[in-house]
Amino acid sequence: MLPISIPSLDASAALAARERIDQLTKPVGSLGRIEELAERLAAVHGGLPPLYERRAIVVGAGDHGVTAEGVSAYPSEVTPQMVGAFLGEFAAINAFARVARAEVFVANFGVAGELPRHPRLLERSVARGTRNLAREAAMPDAHVDAALDAGIGAFADVEARVSPEIVALGEMGIGNSTSAAALICAFTGADAEDVVGRGTGVDDEALRRKQQVVAQAAARTAGGDWRRIVAELGGYEILGLAGVLLAAASKRVPVVLDGFIVSAAALVAQQIAPESIGYCIAAHRSRELGHAIALRHLGLVPLLDLDLRLGEASGAALALPLCEAASRMVREMKTFAQAGVSTASAPIEA
Amino acid sequence: MLPISIPSLDASAALAARERIDQLTKPVGSLGRIEELAERLAAVHGGLPPLYERRAIVVGAGDHGVTAEGVSAYPSEVTPQMVGAFLGEFAAINAFARVARAEVFVANFGVAGELPRHPRLLERSVARGTRNLAREAAMPDAHVDAALDAGIGAFADVEARVSPEIVALGEMGIGNSTSAAALICAFTGADAEDVVGRGTGVDDEALRRKQQVVAQAAARTAGGDWRRIVAELGGYEILGLAGVLLAAASKRVPVVLDGFIVSAAALVAQQIAPESIGYCIAAHRSRELGHAIALRHLGLVPLLDLDLRLGEASGAALALPLCEAASRMVREMKTFAQAGVSTASAPIEA
Repeated sequence: MLPISIPSLDASAALAARERIDQLTKPVGSLGRIEELAERLAAVHGGLPPLYERRAIVVGAGDHGVTAEGVSAYPSEVTPQMVGAFLGEFAAINAFARVARAEVFVANFGVAGELPRHPRLLERSVARGTRNLAREAAMPDAHVDAALDAGIGAFADVEARVSPEIVALGEMGIGNSTSAAALICAFTGADAEDVVGRGTGVDDEALRRKQQVVAQAAARTAGGDWRRIVAELGGYEILGLAGVLLAAASKRVPVVLDGFIVSAAALVAQQIAPESIGYCIAAHRSRELGHAIALRHLGLVPLLDLDLRLGEASGAALALPLCEAASRMVREMKTFAQAGVSTASAPIEA
Repeated sequence: MLPISIPSLDASAALAARERIDQLTKPVGSLGRIEELAERLAAVHGGLPPLYERRAIVVGAGDHGVTAEGVSAYPSEVTPQMVGAFLGEFAAINAFARVARAEVFVANFGVAGELPRHPRLLERSVARGTRNLAREAAMPDAHVDAALDAGIGAFADVEARVSPEIVALGEMGIGNSTSAAALICAFTGADAEDVVGRGTGVDDEALRRKQQVVAQAAARTAGGDWRRIVAELGGYEILGLAGVLLAAASKRVPVVLDGFIVSAAALVAQQIAPESIGYCIAAHRSRELGHAIALRHLGLVPLLDLDLRLGEASGAALALPLCEAASRMVREMKTFAQAGVSTASAPIEA
């Protein structure tokens, strides 16, 4: 894997932001999570956060051999079809990206089918889908570093095109909620029945099958280090996204995490460089079962809770305006003194 | 009060939106609250919702005689000072309005101090603040209709200037969390200790005083109709905002409600025309104690939960991008058939 060094969060910038926030014309603490977010963003940027004029969404795509086990409601051909929808700009993420004024890139880390050439398709494919993790290791050992490097490369591609001040991560890959669930079980020690959900919407029988596959595959990795775990459980887009996360953190670019599958990517990044998670913002709490477990392990509290379970970075896109709001709050509001507003007779934090 | 007639929500437009949403390229139900929001907005507009190019925020302002009881951490002079901050565009709501691409208007319904003339200050003052609701009726009976009409007039002012496709309501008024708490107790039957919070941040002693004031004032209105209740408990900005809500609903303009105090205004509107609440969207759950009680009584479930307790429409502004997202989802996404994407083998709603 390419060398990546994650800078320390800037604690003094966070403190300066907090001091300024507490003097702004509002009761202390009254903007709750937005204040915390502004503090975190100041720590990430090492000063006042920018207004995020340049926003990128990176949707990592890959396929999963485990679909042979009947763990998904959709066939694998949907992965390249949906990539086509993202590039054609008529999927959910495109609608939400317009709201967030963000540019959508798709990174091909391991799609099985053919993809067209497209200026916003980052071609970083490591393999044509993983092997079936229910029966064998999802990928050869050498592909672990290759997929992480593909992610680091994809971030470099995005940097070269739009120099993003913030990046939101999402995913597309039929079968990837099985891979993500197995990774979450392996990294957090949680039981499969607490982590495995219906993904895009399987029925009861397929859900039981999926739980069994996840439990057995995760058990196979017991005692193994993170390289063993990700080689066994995959997938290419999850590792690719972990690479994007690490690369963004290394450049002090905040990373907005989408839901369940992206949280598995963040758990991989946490294994490689725990300090990278300090650069992450959890956009939302997904309806998918194990997401809360993964977020707890990451030490992240999500901003939104809108009962989403789509992926594609849809939830991450919806959180981008909150990052802008946090930045504008600390940059654009005046203090009581500047505004000539009387302060509280006895200000306390409720 | 001016005659107001609230049209029925368009159930067939909501159904058509739901049918379209269920065919879009995503698992059924996977965009959760955003899907519900799109359905609601279709019912409001009587068809596909617009993209909300024209957005208005109306901050109702008024003062409260009850501040004489020591129920607020800030002096009344802060009301006109903060109105000055809103008009000068350096308060929290201005920062958030830039994120939401909305225009901020301030409606003076009853500020005690002097306010400057300003193109975005809607001058609709009924009186220079309420009387002390702890000791007497907050306003003379005749001011109830006058304040509601002031709100209806304020909406007409906003309509004449920007023809808003959506309106977010907020408030400013030192002491108004006492008036709002008393109204919420009177309309919902809840106990003062379950409704009264620290507002902008009073200490324990002032909190006890505030609870006592609210309990006694609300008790005084027992058995009275809504006119008696609002005359006793005030306030001018709360009634004015109820008038804005009713006027917007009468024109099929969706109304995004901010927090605790605006929920009291919505309870007043609910008394006058219950069907007006169908045009409302609850932006967020405030940290202020009784907000959840008021929302339950309104039958509204908030979109955001960001631990906010500022007012000014700050939470409502943050919900505006979600309304745009809901609209873009239903307008801009393609269906499985249009996009040529394979459907689920056995699609179910998880």
